[in-house]
Amino acid sequence: MQATIRFAASQGIPVVARGAGSGLSGGSSAVDGGIVLSLENMRDMTIDPLTRTAVVQPGVFNAEVKAAAAEHGLWYPPDPSSYEFCSIGGNVATNAGGLCCVKYGVTADYVLGMEVVLADGRQVQLGGTQVKDVAGLNLKQLFIGSEGTLGVITEITLRLVPAQRPATTLVATFSTLDDSINAVLAVTSSMRPSMLEFMDNYTINAVDDLTGMGLERDAAAMLVIQTDEPTEHAAHEITLIEQLCQEHNATDVFSTSDADEAEAIIAARRMAIPAVERKGTLLLEDVGVPLPRLGDLVAGVEQISQTRQVPIAVIAHAGDGNTHPLLVVDPTDEEQQQRAQLAYGDVMDLAVRLGGTITGEHGVGRLKRPWLVDSIGEDALELNHRIKKALDPDNILNPGAVYDLHR
Amino acid sequence: MQATIRFAASQGIPVVARGAGSGLSGGSSAVDGGIVLSLENMRDMTIDPLTRTAVVQPGVFNAEVKAAAAEHGLWYPPDPSSYEFCSIGGNVATNAGGLCCVKYGVTADYVLGMEVVLADGRQVQLGGTQVKDVAGLNLKQLFIGSEGTLGVITEITLRLVPAQRPATTLVATFSTLDDSINAVLAVTSSMRPSMLEFMDNYTINAVDDLTGMGLERDAAAMLVIQTDEPTEHAAHEITLIEQLCQEHNATDVFSTSDADEAEAIIAARRMAIPAVERKGTLLLEDVGVPLPRLGDLVAGVEQISQTRQVPIAVIAHAGDGNTHPLLVVDPTDEEQQQRAQLAYGDVMDLAVRLGGTITGEHGVGRLKRPWLVDSIGEDALELNHRIKKALDPDNILNPGAVYDLHR
Repeated sequence: MQATIRFAASQGIPVVARGAGSGLSGGSSAVDGGIVLSLENMRDMTIDPLTRTAVVQPGVFNAEVKAAAAEHGLWYPPDPSSYEFCSIGGNVATNAGGLCCVKYGVTADYVLGMEVVLADGRQVQLGGTQVKDVAGLNLKQLFIGSEGTLGVITEITLRLVPAQRPATTLVATFSTLDDSINAVLAVTSSMRPSMLEFMDNYTINAVDDLTGMGLERDAAAMLVIQTDEPTEHAAHEITLIEQLCQEHNATDVFSTSDADEAEAIIAARRMAIPAVERKGTLLLEDVGVPLPRLGDLVAGVEQISQTRQVPIAVIAHAGDGNTHPLLVVDPTDEEQQQRAQLAYGDVMDLAVRLGGTITGEHGVGRLKRPWLVDSIGEDALELNHRIKKALDPDNILNPGAVYDLHR
Repeated sequence: MQATIRFAASQGIPVVARGAGSGLSGGSSAVDGGIVLSLENMRDMTIDPLTRTAVVQPGVFNAEVKAAAAEHGLWYPPDPSSYEFCSIGGNVATNAGGLCCVKYGVTADYVLGMEVVLADGRQVQLGGTQVKDVAGLNLKQLFIGSEGTLGVITEITLRLVPAQRPATTLVATFSTLDDSINAVLAVTSSMRPSMLEFMDNYTINAVDDLTGMGLERDAAAMLVIQTDEPTEHAAHEITLIEQLCQEHNATDVFSTSDADEAEAIIAARRMAIPAVERKGTLLLEDVGVPLPRLGDLVAGVEQISQTRQVPIAVIAHAGDGNTHPLLVVDPTDEEQQQRAQLAYGDVMDLAVRLGGTITGEHGVGRLKRPWLVDSIGEDALELNHRIKKALDPDNILNPGAVYDLHR
C-alpha cells in the first residue's frame, strides 16, 4: 500500500482507491495512465465488546461489520441501501448515509479513528478510540467523505452501540403528494422515527410490477415509517404516527411489530432501485433539501420530468430531506439521453435553489463535479482547493474526482 | 467583524477571538500587539421548531440555547459544566463536551452549519441545515474545535432534539478505586447511561466541606449514574446498575427519580471544581483514555501526586474516559508550584502512554501546546501545520494557540 503510493508519487502517477465499486458518482473510476488501488482484499476485522469498538480494514462489507457486531449483541447503525455489497472503506470515504440516519446519524458519527496513507506514502493515525478528543484539528472528520482525494484509508476504528430494539413498522399511502409530504413534516416535528422513507407512484408501480406484492398502485405516494422506542413508548408513537397520517388523508395505513412482515415492507423500499431499473437505464440523483422544502423539491422534480420528457421516479429518505430522483432513460433513445443529462442538472439546480445540497450521501465523484461550485459557493470551493493542494500538492490522489484541478 | 479582520490582515496584526472567556486552556488569551475580538455582544438567536434547528450567534450562552429550545419542547444536549457562563461560539471553537456526551455526543454532533470569517476577511458559509450533506470536504467539522486558528465563527446552525425524558439518578460509593472503576466498565458495557460521573475521595471531602450535604467522606470514590430511558425500561436499567454496583462491592447505593433529589446529587458533581478550588490554586487537567485504561490512569495520577507531592483531586466523565485531574497548589509555596508544573506534564505523558489524549474537551490552547506533538504524533501535527498555513498563511488568527508557528 505505502510502497504503491510512494512509487506513484515518485513517478507522478495518479492513484484511485477503490473498494467494492458500488459508488454511484464515479468516485472510484479509473483514470487514464493511473493506478487503481483495490482495497477489496484488506478484510481484517476485530470487535471489542468491552469498549464497543470495531477495528476494520476498508475491504470489509458494511453488512459484515453489522453481522460481526451483532454476534456480541452490538449494532453498527449506518445502513446504505447497498449495505450487502458496499465496503466500509467506501462508506467512510463518501460519509455514506442510509435509512436509519434520520435517527442514528451517518457514517461520520461512528468513526472514532482511522489510519490513512498520505499522498507522499506516509502512514498516519487520525483520531483514536475515544468519543472525546480535541487535540489538534479534527483531521479524521476532514478525511471522512473526502472521496480518496486526501489519502487512502487503510484501517478504521468504529464505534458500536447496543443492539437496536425491535421496531414497529407502519406503511401509509396517500392520494396526493402534498398530503404525504405534510404527513412527513407532521411526524418529524413530533418525534424521531428510526426510519421515514418515501416512494412515489412511479416507484410503487415499478416495485409492484417486480414483486407482485399488491401495493396500492394508484397511490400518489407511500411512506414507510418505523419506531424503535421501547415497547410501551413505541405503541404510543405508532398510534400517533397513524393519527398524523390519517389527519393528512392517508388512504390506507397498516402497522406491524412482526419482524417478517416489517421486513417485507422494507424490502419493498429496498427493491425500489432495482425495480425502477427494469424500466430503463437509470441516472441516480442524491439531492437533499431542508425538510420544509421537500414538497417543493418533489413538485419541482415532477415539473422537470414533464419539461424534459424524462420519467423520474422519486424515492427519498424523507425524514432527513435526502431524496433520490431516479431518471429513467430509454437506452435506445439518444435524444432522450441528452434531455436526461439536462434534467440531471436541473434537479441539482433546483436543490441548490431550495437551499439544499447536490449530494446527501453518494458523494460528488466525477459525475457531479461541475455542480459543486453552485452547491457550496466559490469561497468554500476555494478553501477545498487550498486544503487539497496542501495535502496532495501534485494532485496524484483521485485526480478528476470532486475537483477540477490541473495536474 | 469582517472590517476588523481585513484591517488586521492588511497590517499583519494578530486577532484572538474571545467569547465568554471561560476556557481553561488559554485559547482566547490576548497576545502582545494583537487584537482581542470580543464576540460577547453577538447574541441573536432564532429557534425553528419545525426543522428543530437553532440559528445562534457566538455570544449566546449555552444555557440560553438550552432554555430557548426548551420553550419549544426541544433540547440542545451538550452540557459543559460551565454551561451557565460559557458561550456557544466557544463551545464550537473547542468542540466542547460535558456530562451527557457519554450518550448524546459532543458539540460537533449538533452543528449543522456555520458562518465563519476567514483570515483574509472573507465570510463563508460551511455546511447548512441538513444532517446529510457530502458536497466537498467537511470544512464545517474541520473548523469545529479549531480554537480560533482557522477563522472566526460568526453564526452557528444547531440541530435540536426532542426534550430529554425525565431521568432516574443513582449514586454509589465504593471503598476502593478498583471497585468503582470496575463498576464503571460493567455499566458501560451493559447499557448506555445518559450520565456516568466519577469523584474521588479528595473531591468528595472538598464538596462535603463546602456544602455539608453529608457525603460518605471515607469513600474512595463516588459514581453518579443516570438513565433517561422511558419509564419501564429506566426501571429495568436502574435495577441493573444497582446490581452491577453491588457486585463490585458498593458500600452505599441510592437511586431516585425525583427531579429535585437528582438535581442535588448532580449539583454535588457540578460543585466539584469550585469546592476543590477552596483548597488551593487549581491546575485543571482534561486527559482522556480508552475506558479499559481508566483504572491505570486514576492509579497513575495517584502515583504522580505522591511523587511530585502535589494533591490531585480526580473527577471524571467516567463513561467516556474523559478525566479532570485537578492539581491543588498552595499559592504561597513556589517550590510546589514548580513541582505542579511537572506533575501537569506527567499526567499528559501518562494519558498518551495509555493510548489516550491530552485534551478531551477543553482544547490545546496555549497551556497544552508543548504536549500536542506527543499526543497526535509528528506526522499528524505536520498535517495540522499544512492546513493552518493553507488557510491562514500569515498566522494572524490566534497565533501561539495550539501551534508553535513563527509569524
